[in-house]
Amino acid sequence: MSETTPLRLGILGSGRGSNFVAVADACAAGAVKAQPCLVLSDVENAGILGHARTRQIPARHIPPGKFRTRLDDEAEQVWIHELQQAGVELVVLAGFMRVLKGNFLNAFAGRIVNIHPSLLPSFPGLEAWKQALDYGVKVTGCTVHFVDSGIDSGPIIGQQSVPVLDGDTAESLHERIQLAEHELYPLCVARLASRSMRIQGRRVIG
Amino acid sequence: MSETTPLRLGILGSGRGSNFVAVADACAAGAVKAQPCLVLSDVENAGILGHARTRQIPARHIPPGKFRTRLDDEAEQVWIHELQQAGVELVVLAGFMRVLKGNFLNAFAGRIVNIHPSLLPSFPGLEAWKQALDYGVKVTGCTVHFVDSGIDSGPIIGQQSVPVLDGDTAESLHERIQLAEHELYPLCVARLASRSMRIQGRRVIG
Repeated sequence: MSETTPLRLGILGSGRGSNFVAVADACAAGAVKAQPCLVLSDVENAGILGHARTRQIPARHIPPGKFRTRLDDEAEQVWIHELQQAGVELVVLAGFMRVLKGNFLNAFAGRIVNIHPSLLPSFPGLEAWKQALDYGVKVTGCTVHFVDSGIDSGPIIGQQSVPVLDGDTAESLHERIQLAEHELYPLCVARLASRSMRIQGRRVIG
Repeated sequence: MSETTPLRLGILGSGRGSNFVAVADACAAGAVKAQPCLVLSDVENAGILGHARTRQIPARHIPPGKFRTRLDDEAEQVWIHELQQAGVELVVLAGFMRVLKGNFLNAFAGRIVNIHPSLLPSFPGLEAWKQALDYGVKVTGCTVHFVDSGIDSGPIIGQQSVPVLDGDTAESLHERIQLAEHELYPLCVARLASRSMRIQGRRVIG
């Protein structure tokens, strides 16, 4: 494949899709050599689906099945099939609120990325900005990482720091982190789209 | 006590004392309203003692006793006594390689600070820069925190971020973090010297 072929992205989200918008608009502007080919959501009325359709990007709600925090086996096969049919090369999680399991991870091994609202390995898991505020850190941030079978534990592609201010509430800190996310995620997808990265141990280089 | 009285510092170190130099020189320059009154080391020929004497700051080697990683009970009493006799208000750890225990912590409760070469709570413990490099983070840094009975677990006074570069070795990263330490530690001591800080939960404010 030529290095100049845009990387084909499949985006999974459960919410309003602000990180998807940041990535998609950076692709449209030519800043990221990638093409969002398909947006999938487990939430029927998720904002991310509307943002995709506005941009003429195929978007579908696919029911997640019977579980609350993951896709059930049957649903998982449908999700994998849809992404493969669309020729997706990189799965981009953008506010996707379900944990991906073995079959999905195997189908896109080393080709799933997520963004997390802390400087990992500090504060994995839910509401990381609130964890950071309660711990009393003065610097937090966001992390783009490969997804593995752990919780927010995969190799780190990029991080951006964000100050915590004395007057911060969980909400004000979360907003500041999200602004950093909208800068960091397109940058990291651009680096992935350059297809020059390699992994040494846990270090992502290039 | 008047707010303009310089905060009396006792500095404990085991090594070359570069953080002590940064703090002492900021005090001498008037940037930090504090006065280094006594420097103690458990290592007889530690560089920190020479740096203190060059600056006409009282400096002593006090034998740490029979243990390798802490002061023994008898030594601890001598260290506490020396600091109290010097009228030390704030104990500043600057590369001090022993863990302080209950009697010492009680004698200077809430008045002992340390600097750690990572963005805590990531990478507590030894060789934090190497831990960070091996984990593959893209942002690390340094943390000034109050000392409590845990390992690098006390409330955080200040943090400064430092980028990790693709070509970094443990040594090059450690050097970059130390430059940040030499900026951060004087700033944090200056804030402590202003005597306006308060602690809410784990958050150090002001």
